[in-house]
Amino acid sequence: MITIQDLGEQALLAQLQRFSPPDLTGDDAAVLRSPHPDSLVISTDMLVEGVHFSKQTTPGFDVGWRAAAANLSDLAAMGALPLGMTIALGLPGTTPLEWVLSVYKGITACLKPWQTPILGGDVCQSPVRTISITVLGKVPPAKTLYRHSAQAGDWIIATGIHGAARAGLECLLHPDQGQSLDPYHRQAWQTAHQRPDPRLDLVPCLQNLNTRITGMDSSDGLADAVLQICRASQVGAELWTEHLPIPPGLNDWVGQSTAIAWTLYGGEDFELILTLPENIAQTWLQTVRSTLTLPANHCPRPIGRITPNPDVCLLTPDCHRQTLDLKQGFQHFRP
Amino acid sequence: MITIQDLGEQALLAQLQRFSPPDLTGDDAAVLRSPHPDSLVISTDMLVEGVHFSKQTTPGFDVGWRAAAANLSDLAAMGALPLGMTIALGLPGTTPLEWVLSVYKGITACLKPWQTPILGGDVCQSPVRTISITVLGKVPPAKTLYRHSAQAGDWIIATGIHGAARAGLECLLHPDQGQSLDPYHRQAWQTAHQRPDPRLDLVPCLQNLNTRITGMDSSDGLADAVLQICRASQVGAELWTEHLPIPPGLNDWVGQSTAIAWTLYGGEDFELILTLPENIAQTWLQTVRSTLTLPANHCPRPIGRITPNPDVCLLTPDCHRQTLDLKQGFQHFRP
Repeated sequence: MITIQDLGEQALLAQLQRFSPPDLTGDDAAVLRSPHPDSLVISTDMLVEGVHFSKQTTPGFDVGWRAAAANLSDLAAMGALPLGMTIALGLPGTTPLEWVLSVYKGITACLKPWQTPILGGDVCQSPVRTISITVLGKVPPAKTLYRHSAQAGDWIIATGIHGAARAGLECLLHPDQGQSLDPYHRQAWQTAHQRPDPRLDLVPCLQNLNTRITGMDSSDGLADAVLQICRASQVGAELWTEHLPIPPGLNDWVGQSTAIAWTLYGGEDFELILTLPENIAQTWLQTVRSTLTLPANHCPRPIGRITPNPDVCLLTPDCHRQTLDLKQGFQHFRP
Repeated sequence: MITIQDLGEQALLAQLQRFSPPDLTGDDAAVLRSPHPDSLVISTDMLVEGVHFSKQTTPGFDVGWRAAAANLSDLAAMGALPLGMTIALGLPGTTPLEWVLSVYKGITACLKPWQTPILGGDVCQSPVRTISITVLGKVPPAKTLYRHSAQAGDWIIATGIHGAARAGLECLLHPDQGQSLDPYHRQAWQTAHQRPDPRLDLVPCLQNLNTRITGMDSSDGLADAVLQICRASQVGAELWTEHLPIPPGLNDWVGQSTAIAWTLYGGEDFELILTLPENIAQTWLQTVRSTLTLPANHCPRPIGRITPNPDVCLLTPDCHRQTLDLKQGFQHFRP
């Protein structure tokens, strides 16, 4: 097995440059054309072994795919399309070359449908495998999706099911517990965890709308996204329990209470949470269903409504209200 | 002492957002205007505690300053000016908040002369303090500095002295050995190591030239920069020993042989190595000296010439030739 310390920095960089267009690498920085009149959108993420992934349970390909998907999802959440991505890797010298190449293959596969180049990056020594990705995108200024523009009465739309990535993680961590599951569901959930699809497919039909749209991705959970939008827009929300985008089959497997918790707080589904004026939302949902051939799990659907009251509540069919709280979501650094 | 696990992720992010313009943070990504008709330039770097800095010997402010300077230097090396910077931090929960804020203060201080905003970023848990910076810049397409355009006969220009950062590191690691030094030199070298100045000041007067210019920064050493330019341009070079940009006072302190080695291979001076046609180089050097008020250590000077012969040699006044080799430079991952 060849490790990267066998290879050395220059030879490793030469291997990684093969994943980038030749005209974009080999200098101090990558150069690309300005996408005028669009605005630039930039976002960055760091992933650390033992925190965001385990080298034992996550193949390098999936580490790369998920890292790329998370960054592309941040672009989709701004209504933007990708221009390119830089990758910085911190690696122990004993890291197998094979693993590093697998990460790059995963990133490349995730970028492929969007024809997005890797713009080069950096490799350096670190005691822990670390990946830092920065993605650059473009959006027409008037079509940028912010979090602060939701208004009372807007419909809240989830672009697909939520909780599937959490369920998939459970299946991967405890394969024995998934034995009773429909193999179709198990596979779908594991794929949701290992190879999430960023919702860039919806960006063009969001850009076609001439209306106020609020948006955020649900990487930190559906509830977190609704709470962040409400906080930024100084409004509240009610989510309708019977319309929660619970993955088909999940109630039967873990019971309704856990299924709702995973749907609200599971995270890493990389769908979008949008708010639109009600009449436009209805038309848009019909247009999306008729023009895009979407798998059922990735179909946008209304899940609630923005309210003037600043609370974010879950509303049961019998009008019981439960207030949602960010503290139930994922937070770094807490011991 | 408040640690970041006392604070939690959301409160830490709120503290760090104060370093960014309010309109650029709080969403999934930062949005900025496209700099049309300029091209975009993007570069990324990762710094790891114990590899690139020591929390014992490098204050957070200097860690931040040097990280920002290294990235700005990559832009200068492309002939570009900065648009903004993203910062991803991987941190153990026990990291003092004070240290994180110092890093941000150092970055902010380094960016200030260039009015460059921090475009937000990411914080996450890591067993080792890690900083990943991505810088975005702009350059008129015809003014972009590449490595591959050097031609035989060009003058090689260093934009300032080299080896000062290496000497400053020595002074910091062994303060007792620096006692005999002129305090002015000691201070200048330590500053060169702790607070290097990226050479963005030269970018406007490089953009004013209508000629072929080749360029790279000398972050990995003067010799490395010349070798990389020669490799990319398929040419060679001779460097003139008596014109090497050795820091004043260094010969006296460490002897000529070590002074030359530090000048060629020391690295981290973050100056530029340029090649220009001889007649233009002469005029440009005069223009720079007469229009910019530069400290002597930061004055551009000719150090050699590009040759058709592919070797890179050091030429002594008595015409002795010594071939330079990249292997003497710094390489990651070698055990």
